[in-house]
Amino acid sequence: MKVFIAGVDGYLGWALAQYLTARGHDVAGTDKYLRRAWVAEMNSDTAIPIYDMPTRLEAFKARYGKELLFREGDLLDYPFLRDFLGEFQPDAIVHLAEMPSAPYSMIDQEHAVWTHTNNVNGSLNVLWAMREVCPQAHLVKLGTMGEYGTPNVDIPEGFFEIEYRGRKDVLPFPRQPGSFYHLTKVHDTHNTMFACRIWGLRSTDIMQGVVFGTRIDEMGDDPRLRSRLDFDQCFGTAINRFCCQAVIGHPLTLYGKGSQKRGFLPLRDSMQCLTIAVENPPQPGEYRVFNQFEECYTIEELAYKVREAAESIGLNVDIAHFDNPRTEKEEHYYNPDRENLIRLGYQPTHDVVAEMRIMLQDLLEHRDHIRQYADILVPDIRWDGTRRRSELIQMETAVKS
Amino acid sequence: MKVFIAGVDGYLGWALAQYLTARGHDVAGTDKYLRRAWVAEMNSDTAIPIYDMPTRLEAFKARYGKELLFREGDLLDYPFLRDFLGEFQPDAIVHLAEMPSAPYSMIDQEHAVWTHTNNVNGSLNVLWAMREVCPQAHLVKLGTMGEYGTPNVDIPEGFFEIEYRGRKDVLPFPRQPGSFYHLTKVHDTHNTMFACRIWGLRSTDIMQGVVFGTRIDEMGDDPRLRSRLDFDQCFGTAINRFCCQAVIGHPLTLYGKGSQKRGFLPLRDSMQCLTIAVENPPQPGEYRVFNQFEECYTIEELAYKVREAAESIGLNVDIAHFDNPRTEKEEHYYNPDRENLIRLGYQPTHDVVAEMRIMLQDLLEHRDHIRQYADILVPDIRWDGTRRRSELIQMETAVKS
Repeated sequence: MKVFIAGVDGYLGWALAQYLTARGHDVAGTDKYLRRAWVAEMNSDTAIPIYDMPTRLEAFKARYGKELLFREGDLLDYPFLRDFLGEFQPDAIVHLAEMPSAPYSMIDQEHAVWTHTNNVNGSLNVLWAMREVCPQAHLVKLGTMGEYGTPNVDIPEGFFEIEYRGRKDVLPFPRQPGSFYHLTKVHDTHNTMFACRIWGLRSTDIMQGVVFGTRIDEMGDDPRLRSRLDFDQCFGTAINRFCCQAVIGHPLTLYGKGSQKRGFLPLRDSMQCLTIAVENPPQPGEYRVFNQFEECYTIEELAYKVREAAESIGLNVDIAHFDNPRTEKEEHYYNPDRENLIRLGYQPTHDVVAEMRIMLQDLLEHRDHIRQYADILVPDIRWDGTRRRSELIQMETAVKS
Repeated sequence: MKVFIAGVDGYLGWALAQYLTARGHDVAGTDKYLRRAWVAEMNSDTAIPIYDMPTRLEAFKARYGKELLFREGDLLDYPFLRDFLGEFQPDAIVHLAEMPSAPYSMIDQEHAVWTHTNNVNGSLNVLWAMREVCPQAHLVKLGTMGEYGTPNVDIPEGFFEIEYRGRKDVLPFPRQPGSFYHLTKVHDTHNTMFACRIWGLRSTDIMQGVVFGTRIDEMGDDPRLRSRLDFDQCFGTAINRFCCQAVIGHPLTLYGKGSQKRGFLPLRDSMQCLTIAVENPPQPGEYRVFNQFEECYTIEELAYKVREAAESIGLNVDIAHFDNPRTEKEEHYYNPDRENLIRLGYQPTHDVVAEMRIMLQDLLEHRDHIRQYADILVPDIRWDGTRRRSELIQMETAVKS
């Protein structure tokens, strides 16, 4: 199949280009390198070094014997997007080109508005371009489990049948997101659902959990093929951040109690799932939702798992609770469905600690690089719109072996 | 109370400034005159002549003995908005400064994206500015009944308690809007709810029905105090458009069967309701939703009521069914609640035909002006993204008396 990846220079995009190509698909992609700029704005850097796109493309061709058709560009540049899609005529478009950080979107008015412009308008442009030049293509749109928030009932996959005052209907499940970033994904969800309804487009809207992992097997040992891995407060998600902290002996930074529960999945599972979506398109006009995660864990459980993995390779790890810079429930019910992908063949990686061990080993090679950023590991972006470094509440010191 | 009106030059804004001032409130406002530009873009004009803002303000002062503190400006200009709100320190902000047309938002990619930028980012700026300079103010945000779409169950006011798989929660009622414009209001709803939750802002989100009417009593006979009234396919809502058509002998343009059911309310009821919201603020941190309409009618019922009103003053009216340029259900269940405003004292105007008679009499004075635009009264903006004039399906000719 011909697959277009928007955001192909990113953490998921660069891995997905390889995963799909290794399975025989033809990949084209675009990127504006904004992730690189945002992480620099956070005074941070990817823990695993990455290369510029020409170097990446060269390695890509050497490994897979095929070109990745790449053009630098912006989804906000509608003629660019439309013309590229029109020429390439993809069977599937995987849209990973959004600003993906909750804290980044909460910094101030400018960042909140910019996140809306980039994410919502960029996605709108994808929908309009599809309508105009490739209405048969299948949009695999990256949403987030965070769209749902933490309701006190089970979370179905996008829709639920309800009875209300004696009448029944199947309705979109209400979204209660927890940041302006998550809100932009909710907006995309509504826009995409509408475009499928009125234009007969087809889309899989992926409510993805938090991804972690430093590699997929396809990358082999060529450093030019590795994906980035961030650990700053904005772009470093929980497990990735914890593993980077663990290798430099920094306490793992839990926000509040750490009893917030979320869905997580390894990078290799994310690739498996996105590919399942691509290879099993919905019908024209169909809008479907996949909840995409391996399992749900509390953040604290994960910190203990990272500690366990770290200890198994001889690293001592402290776990620290900082006052929570976010406004979120720390104790809550959480029981999302995850049936659609399983039904299509998704085989979850169950050994999370083994995956963490691989990550720690990969990251140990770069500990000196990560250590340079040790002073930015405690968050200071707060949901109340101010900047103030979180304070240490409690420290669980490692039992030195 | 000190009330800030965003969009004070508009159909609702200009009337509301007068209604509130007549009740003793102090009003400030802003506008960028975009409505004037959009209607010109549609090759149309307001049926009732309106004056430039300096002239309006002069008449305002003469009638009410008070200045309206006006500054031309754009909600997308954050420093302007923040500084104006910071100086004025409103008790309430009534936000009417959005692009309000479904068809306009469906014209093409550019109009859809622009509608998002203007409406969603403008509203985001209001929320951030409130947080920064007037966190105690009450945001009365104009949404639309169209946010809900036409579900097969009753429509509560914003939230509903449900039981799902044996557990209960109170959740936002799912939104299934029918155009990119309506989608922007849904996005605002989510953003506003979130801002109340994390910043303790207070807001009344008004799910308003379709407003009609040419005047409120406060305006008296000074033509400089009259509000605009549009009748083009984008900015002319059903009854207003029908009344303009009736006075020039153009058939009333129903889209499809006309059995689409919606909530409607006279301009005077809209003023009454917005004022009730302003004068009865919610608690800090509270986000509440008012469904705001006088009654639900099918579009066809309303066309017959306009005919009835027109006949009573000697006008013959044909009713025409055109092929529907929108993608919408023409037969559907529709039963929205409307309790919150009633509980706070809203007294609905029940005699809709009498209101239409006033409108027709007001509009008869401008029939020659309206007649110049007779060729733009059949819609051509279609939900499939093309422009094609709707075709006549069926005509119900007036029984000439």
